[in-house]
Amino acid sequence: MLQLNPILTSPDASSAKSVVMAVGGAEDKVHGRQILTTFCQRSGGLDATIGVIPSASREPDAMGRLYHDIFMEIGVKAVEVLLVSDRSHGENPDLLERLERCSGVFMSGGDQLRLSSLLDETPLLEKLRHQVWQGQSVLAGTSAGAAVMGERMIASGGSNEPPNRSLVDMSTGLGFLPDVIVDQHFHNRNRLARLISAISAYPEKLGVGIDEDTCALFEADGHLKVLGRGAVTIVDPRDVSYTSYPHVDLTDPVSIYNLRVHILSDGDCYNLLTHRALHKTV
Amino acid sequence: MLQLNPILTSPDASSAKSVVMAVGGAEDKVHGRQILTTFCQRSGGLDATIGVIPSASREPDAMGRLYHDIFMEIGVKAVEVLLVSDRSHGENPDLLERLERCSGVFMSGGDQLRLSSLLDETPLLEKLRHQVWQGQSVLAGTSAGAAVMGERMIASGGSNEPPNRSLVDMSTGLGFLPDVIVDQHFHNRNRLARLISAISAYPEKLGVGIDEDTCALFEADGHLKVLGRGAVTIVDPRDVSYTSYPHVDLTDPVSIYNLRVHILSDGDCYNLLTHRALHKTV
Repeated sequence: MLQLNPILTSPDASSAKSVVMAVGGAEDKVHGRQILTTFCQRSGGLDATIGVIPSASREPDAMGRLYHDIFMEIGVKAVEVLLVSDRSHGENPDLLERLERCSGVFMSGGDQLRLSSLLDETPLLEKLRHQVWQGQSVLAGTSAGAAVMGERMIASGGSNEPPNRSLVDMSTGLGFLPDVIVDQHFHNRNRLARLISAISAYPEKLGVGIDEDTCALFEADGHLKVLGRGAVTIVDPRDVSYTSYPHVDLTDPVSIYNLRVHILSDGDCYNLLTHRALHKTV
Repeated sequence: MLQLNPILTSPDASSAKSVVMAVGGAEDKVHGRQILTTFCQRSGGLDATIGVIPSASREPDAMGRLYHDIFMEIGVKAVEVLLVSDRSHGENPDLLERLERCSGVFMSGGDQLRLSSLLDETPLLEKLRHQVWQGQSVLAGTSAGAAVMGERMIASGGSNEPPNRSLVDMSTGLGFLPDVIVDQHFHNRNRLARLISAISAYPEKLGVGIDEDTCALFEADGHLKVLGRGAVTIVDPRDVSYTSYPHVDLTDPVSIYNLRVHILSDGDCYNLLTHRALHKTV
């Protein structure tokens, strides 16, 4: 296995495991695989057992196989594809037992509403949340798999318009990161306005817009670290002094004053407790 | 004339004239014509003589005729099309004399580099700047005609990427609003990243991103007022605590912490002296 991928090592005591990785979609699956390799390493490296939840996809079997092969190539010990294509699967004892063995769980892209409606309020989700919060499993999700991370989730939305109430459809997410609203394919698909629209509606949340092939890695100690080719854009509404939301017509622009915005790139950090961005040397 | 357009009135003492209107392109030319009518009104209403500079356009004759007809329909007294299609025209005594008569001057869309290279350092531009700054003429520009307003100008750029050094090509603008960098078609064409890229390079400037059919109206008293259907997005780098510009590779994302961003809509104000956004009731 070491010959296949000398990047992975055995886990050591310094690798804290309570980690959530929100990936902005289109992560490198072929060449450097920085993000996927980091996920495997954080999940236990050579000793990792990775669970793949491909439920967001319309072709979950093919999606499951794709990531199965990638993670095996990267060099983990085992990959379990956890096929949940019906809500009843979420209480299947065999699936729950296989989830238990996973030191890392990866949620694929697809449709975040499909993913959330298949998993929400199932024993499988409860178990996964418990394992993640206890530090037993590292969680990663890409695209739709990242969108579901918050308690509130962007289900869909438009672009090429200023922020407005009709630009975004919100729904209930899976709540792994209760305090953030995640958006993905961020600069790639012109999604600042829809993230600001979402934040206008939920100003107690922090907006996190993640570019393609880029990851916001939420550490157990309250730091968000950035890795990958693009940027993570933080939209912090804590200082907002005025917003016209919801007192405007559905399609009129929403005014919002004093948003604090950080553009973070590979190696940068953001402290979720102090709301300060930190340079990569920290 | 009053029958044609009862919106216009004769000027009164309360209408301060030292005004620059930066329009984000695609302003309504057919129906309500809110922005173009406001421009005519601020230029003197029924008594206005409007100069049209269609030099940004590849078809300046047709563009000149278009705005000629629109402004005449709105009901101004006269329209002068100031055809500058060669730098030598910028010292033509006839053109200079006709400019002198204009209480409002409108620069059309097209290519901002064509416009700036035709006008820069000509007597016509000097005269226009003098008239605008003295409050003799209201100045408006749409799209390319807005892009040239700053001392530094976004000549062209890309989108669908995070902010980076190669995302924007800067050039010299016409300097009517020395302290701002204007971008247009803003949310419509996903231009936040290029405006942030520009601001990273010129952090002493204020970024002003203007949506289509939307106007940032710079009053003589230091207020920016918003009118129109979209938003004006202010990107204020005054509090920036860190940026990796220019110490990153050309295409790598630029990190930038603590940008202050305001989304302003019709009726909102921004005080350019105190850098505070103000609600429309102010």
